[in-house]
Amino acid sequence: MESDIYKLLCQSSLFFGLNEKELKTLIENIFYQIKKYNPEEIIAYSGDNCDRLMIVLEGTVKAEMTDFSGKTIKIEDISAPGPLASAFLFGQNNRFPVNISANGQVKILSLPKESVIKLFQTNTIFLTNYLNSISSRTQFLSQKIRFLTFKTIKEKIALYILQLASNNLNRITISSSHQDLADLFGVTRPSLSRALGDMEKEKLIKIEKKDIIILDRDRLNKMIS
Amino acid sequence: MESDIYKLLCQSSLFFGLNEKELKTLIENIFYQIKKYNPEEIIAYSGDNCDRLMIVLEGTVKAEMTDFSGKTIKIEDISAPGPLASAFLFGQNNRFPVNISANGQVKILSLPKESVIKLFQTNTIFLTNYLNSISSRTQFLSQKIRFLTFKTIKEKIALYILQLASNNLNRITISSSHQDLADLFGVTRPSLSRALGDMEKEKLIKIEKKDIIILDRDRLNKMIS
Repeated sequence: MESDIYKLLCQSSLFFGLNEKELKTLIENIFYQIKKYNPEEIIAYSGDNCDRLMIVLEGTVKAEMTDFSGKTIKIEDISAPGPLASAFLFGQNNRFPVNISANGQVKILSLPKESVIKLFQTNTIFLTNYLNSISSRTQFLSQKIRFLTFKTIKEKIALYILQLASNNLNRITISSSHQDLADLFGVTRPSLSRALGDMEKEKLIKIEKKDIIILDRDRLNKMIS
Repeated sequence: MESDIYKLLCQSSLFFGLNEKELKTLIENIFYQIKKYNPEEIIAYSGDNCDRLMIVLEGTVKAEMTDFSGKTIKIEDISAPGPLASAFLFGQNNRFPVNISANGQVKILSLPKESVIKLFQTNTIFLTNYLNSISSRTQFLSQKIRFLTFKTIKEKIALYILQLASNNLNRITISSSHQDLADLFGVTRPSLSRALGDMEKEKLIKIEKKDIIILDRDRLNKMIS
């Protein structure tokens, strides 16, 4: 494998904390394949057995679902050096949850499950990164489910603020981007901004850059109970 | 540790595939603690740092959440030899998501994160079981999110049936229990049974023991599109 690739892989969340030399030694001792795909070529079909870890080395891929009327819904774009479906390599239902296809010319590193397990056993950093990656995904989804049970965006924002401000704190700092928050709530970014603006006008909260100041905790509490 | 405990632990999903002797050798080489709790005693508070894997050895514990009005909502009971919050030991937000307390006299095996990582590296079976456990959780949650975007129970059932019957198959077998399905849909078991009965009366489906026969695929498709 060319040295450029090791440089790129060091930036992947799965190999974070390893240097190029360490990574090269690791990869050279396991079985792997590098595959090239043409624009629009299918990389994996939804329902295919997920028996390998794939990492984008060049280009971007798109994840799509087909609904029952045959309409295609785009889920996300994944660009180099992002991993594909890492939470589906293990577990009861280890099948690709989406169709994955190439957005343009794409190069993919493919590690069979056995190679991934070998990497886990030879390198704690990779193992911990992998566990962190799927655990964070689980934590994000658990939280998202809590948000989905509330109907309006304002209720979701109220819950989010009150969770962060649990110790009777009246000023909280939002470290996530608006896009990440919108994803968590399952809404679009403009809708989120509009709802935040409305809540400011209603004197529930006040926004100061990355901070949110709670002006009326009682009314926020009522929104979600 | 007494030999009875190894026998019990072999039945835990995390140690599945290991015999008592192998398990004993593994556990004897790592640091662990066994703690006893009295009825109603708090084992972990929601928000506490989750820096250890806990496995119930005796009795049952309950996981509860407190909502913003101060009301306590029971999430689940976990009995021996179940693990507690295994998806929260790693990841960005590794804090207990719920309050955990003892239902009666309880004995808990507590393995610090370092011991868990050591076990991963010395035993592939434990590692794979752990990865399977949190990956299955992620897969369950991803699917649950898809179901939560549909409003009525009947719509959720329609989606579930059509997912299983994707290849124009008109008879599917349900391997999950009604309780597992109800959990997936986020509804109670009686509500699920009622909805299934209604759909049978409406001649959308026919239920034969564990099988569901699709009578009107077009109308099912319309319900979810």
